[in-house]
Amino acid sequence: MSAATRLRRLDEAMEIVVLERSGYVSFANCGLPYHVSGVIEQRSALLLQTPESLWERFRIDVRVASEAVRIDRSRKSVVVRDVATGEESELGYDRLVLSPGARPVQPPIPGIERALTLRNVEDTDAMVAAVRDARTAVVIGGGFIGLEVAENLLHRGMSVALVEATDQVMAPLDPEMVAPVHDRLREHGVDLRLGSAVTAIGEHDVTLADGSTLPADVVVAAIGVRPDVALAREAGLQIGPLGGIAVDSRNVTSDPSIYAVGDAVEKDDALGDGDLLVPLANTANLQGRRVADDIAGRGVPTRPVMGTAIVGVLGLQVAAVGWNEKRLRAMGRDYLAVHTHPASHATYYPGAAAMALKLLVDPTDGTILGAQGVGESGIDKRIDVIATAMAGGLKAPDLAELELAYAPQFGSAKDAVNMLGFVAENRLSGLERSVQWHEVEAMQDAGVTVVDVRTPAEFEAGAIPGAINLPLDELRDRSAEIPDGELIVHCGVGIRSHAAVFILGDRRVHNLDGGYTTWRAGTAA
Amino acid sequence: MSAATRLRRLDEAMEIVVLERSGYVSFANCGLPYHVSGVIEQRSALLLQTPESLWERFRIDVRVASEAVRIDRSRKSVVVRDVATGEESELGYDRLVLSPGARPVQPPIPGIERALTLRNVEDTDAMVAAVRDARTAVVIGGGFIGLEVAENLLHRGMSVALVEATDQVMAPLDPEMVAPVHDRLREHGVDLRLGSAVTAIGEHDVTLADGSTLPADVVVAAIGVRPDVALAREAGLQIGPLGGIAVDSRNVTSDPSIYAVGDAVEKDDALGDGDLLVPLANTANLQGRRVADDIAGRGVPTRPVMGTAIVGVLGLQVAAVGWNEKRLRAMGRDYLAVHTHPASHATYYPGAAAMALKLLVDPTDGTILGAQGVGESGIDKRIDVIATAMAGGLKAPDLAELELAYAPQFGSAKDAVNMLGFVAENRLSGLERSVQWHEVEAMQDAGVTVVDVRTPAEFEAGAIPGAINLPLDELRDRSAEIPDGELIVHCGVGIRSHAAVFILGDRRVHNLDGGYTTWRAGTAA
Ligand SMILES: Cc1cc2nc3c(=O)[nH]c(=O)nc-3n(C[C@H](O)[C@H](O)[C@H](O)COP(=O)(O)OP(=O)(O)OC[C@H]3O[C@@H](n4cnc5c(N)ncnc54)[C@H](O)[C@@H]3O)c2cc1C
Ligand SMILES: Cc1cc2nc3c(=O)[nH]c(=O)nc-3n(C[C@H](O)[C@H](O)[C@H](O)COP(=O)(O)OP(=O)(O)OC[C@H]3O[C@@H](n4cnc5c(N)ncnc54)[C@H](O)[C@@H]3O)c2cc1C
Ligand SMILES: CC(C)(COP(=O)(O)OP(=O)(O)OC[C@H]1O[C@@H](n2cnc3c(N)ncnc32)[C@H](O)[C@@H]1OP(=O)(O)O)[C@@H](O)C(=O)NCCC(=O)NCCS
Ligand SMILES: CC(C)(COP(=O)(O)OP(=O)(O)OC[C@H]1O[C@@H](n2cnc3c(N)ncnc32)[C@H](O)[C@@H]1OP(=O)(O)O)[C@@H](O)C(=O)NCCC(=O)NCCS
Repeated sequence: MSAATRLRRLDEAMEIVVLERSGYVSFANCGLPYHVSGVIEQRSALLLQTPESLWERFRIDVRVASEAVRIDRSRKSVVVRDVATGEESELGYDRLVLSPGARPVQPPIPGIERALTLRNVEDTDAMVAAVRDARTAVVIGGGFIGLEVAENLLHRGMSVALVEATDQVMAPLDPEMVAPVHDRLREHGVDLRLGSAVTAIGEHDVTLADGSTLPADVVVAAIGVRPDVALAREAGLQIGPLGGIAVDSRNVTSDPSIYAVGDAVEKDDALGDGDLLVPLANTANLQGRRVADDIAGRGVPTRPVMGTAIVGVLGLQVAAVGWNEKRLRAMGRDYLAVHTHPASHATYYPGAAAMALKLLVDPTDGTILGAQGVGESGIDKRIDVIATAMAGGLKAPDLAELELAYAPQFGSAKDAVNMLGFVAENRLSGLERSVQWHEVEAMQDAGVTVVDVRTPAEFEAGAIPGAINLPLDELRDRSAEIPDGELIVHCGVGIRSHAAVFILGDRRVHNLDGGYTTWRAGTAA
Repeated sequence: MSAATRLRRLDEAMEIVVLERSGYVSFANCGLPYHVSGVIEQRSALLLQTPESLWERFRIDVRVASEAVRIDRSRKSVVVRDVATGEESELGYDRLVLSPGARPVQPPIPGIERALTLRNVEDTDAMVAAVRDARTAVVIGGGFIGLEVAENLLHRGMSVALVEATDQVMAPLDPEMVAPVHDRLREHGVDLRLGSAVTAIGEHDVTLADGSTLPADVVVAAIGVRPDVALAREAGLQIGPLGGIAVDSRNVTSDPSIYAVGDAVEKDDALGDGDLLVPLANTANLQGRRVADDIAGRGVPTRPVMGTAIVGVLGLQVAAVGWNEKRLRAMGRDYLAVHTHPASHATYYPGAAAMALKLLVDPTDGTILGAQGVGESGIDKRIDVIATAMAGGLKAPDLAELELAYAPQFGSAKDAVNMLGFVAENRLSGLERSVQWHEVEAMQDAGVTVVDVRTPAEFEAGAIPGAINLPLDELRDRSAEIPDGELIVHCGVGIRSHAAVFILGDRRVHNLDGGYTTWRAGTAA
């Protein structure tokens, strides 16, 4: 639709037809889960435009319940089926824009036909009807749609189990970052089953691979989405290695008269040579608008994608941009990881919330490779700032110099993003050595001593096995108590141990990145 | 203090002495106003560190109630006066860092000695004592400190008048942008006196230039701050044209052994050749840290400033970065201004608030010159994103391509920042002509017709004098009703009229930037 409206503005005379299989266009996909709970009360709020309003305002000929069933590229025409009558007709085109989106993955589980999915308004109506008298639900899949659905079912007062095949929800983030999300889900009573596969869906329950059953008046499948390429494949358009429609930087497919945009296409990865599937609304909308410009003969800049994404989960903001550590490891790439736990705004002003931030950096040149954040507030801002820095080609140490708006309600004099820059620069320049939570055990086995510089009270409340406690403020006087050899120092989040690194500067000392907080999240995950 | 702590980390052996005239160091200046109302309940919350804690942790020798009264540059020493006893002593240095801050301006008004100012903890204690039994207050000055003080006095239940000599509060923003701030102040019962000068302060009241008097149990002077350069000037250090200590890009003064940072110095303007006074905590802290790096022999990148600032006023966020239109006009520079009024997040999700955003752009190359924002939420994020884009050298049209994290609670699929990019690109590329609110009247006088494409109901509720009403959705059918000649089209905010521009594409049409909303704010201001 963004292509159609923009194209009308660029060309008042062009004939523009939009075909839509379902009964609705220009609806707010991203709001659908919130209507299931009534957080978005009015169903009509989801319908941003109608065929009538689009005709009135834009003279766009929107045909709902009209499915494109075949493309005849040689005749430059599309065969359209009236979904109500089954009647077929032919529609010619000069330019064809494919924006078929992505389909929810339907795994081959016995009983899967009972599972609901959520993609469009009809699906939402079905889910609203299904949950009306339901008390128990099993949501399969811990991606962002699964989490949103789980939250909204909870909001209705239902008992919800969330079954996720991997060891973590929200795959775009690394496991130690989503530990707070797991905690939050459990605190709200979600029966969280990680590393669990559903083997069968019964009439009233769901069976897992370990044989346990979960009560399920309602089952929702949210295992992910796959580019809807049936039409494109059948028309002989090139499909990319990830299963999306292959397009060039102008979003042109292998047929020069056919464009493709949105969830259905593979996008150039802004950080590397490959492609990405980024099923996100920002990308889809912007690509649509760009295609209109291209059709109208305006130049469009190339726009590779980084996949900036956010989801709200039970009061937590969970966001990411770029590559994650899992991916970097899988690629065998060198990286520097920085974990911090700053407050969303000045701690002396009421209402500051703890944030967990992670920055991934190229150790050779400081290029920002990715960032992740989890917390009750302020995450959206920090991830957007970092995404913008990445788009502007700023390096990690440049984050230290950013002038960000500060008043105590909104940030800190040295903002959390500045701090990421400080820490990254300290490590890139070799001023401070760091180790990751997952490296501690092996280093201890190799004889490295872990020194916990927190207070005795903090130490008592929970510590890394084998660590010795030496509070920072006593470190200068008591450093003789530390055994010889290499050291890991740590505190709660890394700030006090950062000071300790320099107090113990004549020894080989590593700061435990993210401190006890990240270590605990990582080992719990 | 940021210089001292960082320097300790960089050099465990160096002797570091901090001199402080008042009784406190490392206090949260920016929190002081909020303690006056009790929003920050605990006075102790304002004291981030003490001389004792700084000694324990950092071995920094902090001497409070110790004033540096003279610098002897040839002897490399400072004469220190014990504020309690008046005793003077001498302290040598290898490197001296001046961070004396800025003094509240005290205008020569009869009775000014009764006016309170707010700079440090002692001032706060005095203000807390003064307001205890007070019922009426006059705040002189509508800068960010004046606004914060006014808000906090209101919060105590006091009657507050705010007197501001110019026609607007918050000078970093342009007048049409602060109109909502004026409204908000008045809605909360503030007696707002714009364009008013205080001529005398009496025992229980304040007299204005127009002869009126305002009751005033308490008077607060917040007219601005001026670099505290007494010590530096007396020592013969170079003072810059704006009255701040002159420093180079490493923050070195005209004496190579003396650095200066913070509110007291003039900073390189990131956007031009000149200098700026930027009395903000982010800049002060970062400069302090940089100076430590320089002293320790680490290279520091040059860091000119843009002056990103924000203030909270009675639930509104008011923020700005870079140059404003007033300044651009005063400089005689060409610029393109873009006003938008987007929602802080998707309107179909509850809680979205209206924002007013303004972007100033170099019309020749799209360089972002500044941005301003006012609204209940989401302003801090947008201004930080734009400040980051500016730091990264992104041009206005690049904002269109930014991948910002979207879920309905946090933004829009095409985020407000993307929209600024769209509009800027449309105008820079000549796709759409625009006019500013202050240009309308003269154009009407010259025979240009104003066409209001809003609905009749909106038109009835308030319209630009002389405008004709032709709703967008009827424009194609009724365009013959529009008189010949040049046109200005407008709607509420500029989106519908943007569509109208292209429907009327065969005529010379200007879109009224920011629509009726900006026009009304501008003409009211
Ligand atoms: C529940 C849910 C929540 C989401 N939340 C977010 C979020 O918070 N943030 C975010 O960034 N993204 C979110 N998304 C993703 C976002 O909605 C998509 O990225 C975006 O809508 C993709 O746009 P698109 O045009 O590629 O596909 P779609 O919006 O899916 O549109 C494709 C349309 O094409 C129609 N169609 C397909 N094939 C044919 C055919 N052959 N003939 C006719 N019509 C056809 C389909 O019926 C569909 O309406 C969410 C998605 C869902 C489902
Ligand atoms: C009420 C208030 C609210 C503010 N709110 C914000 C905000 O929301 N956001 C923001 O970015 N900024 C804000 N600021 C500004 C911010 O506090 C300053 O930019 C920052 O503190 C400047 O640091 P500085 O080191 O230059 O000066 P200061 O913090 O003022 O420190 C200078 C110190 O030097 C001492 N001193 C001066 N001369 C001598 C001498 N000869 N001998 C010994 N000691 C001396 C002074 O007593 C003072 O304590 C606010 C300031 C105030 C007063
Ligand atoms: C509703 C929909 C049809 C919007 O169409 P649209 O008219 O292109 O978009 P908007 O109403 O957001 O308006 C944007 C236009 O107004 C312009 N604009 C915005 N503010 C402006 C202002 N203050 N002054 C001038 N122009 C302005 C923009 O430049 C843009 O025009 P352009 O593309 O020609 O540059 C389309 O976004 C849609 O179908 N959305 C629903 C589906 C969806 O996004 N789902 C996923 C998320 S839930
Ligand atoms: C309190 C004060 C002394 C802080 O001193 P500080 O130790 O330099 O600063 P912080 O406690 O914020 O810690 C920052 C340090 O921790 C490091 N750090 C932060 N998070 C870290 C992490 N997770 N891992 C490792 N290091 C981390 C930073 O890199 C920085 O060290 P560096 O400068 O050596 O790079 C100083 O900021 C001050 O006096 N503030 C009050 C005055 C003021 O700011 N007023 C205006 C605003 S109200």
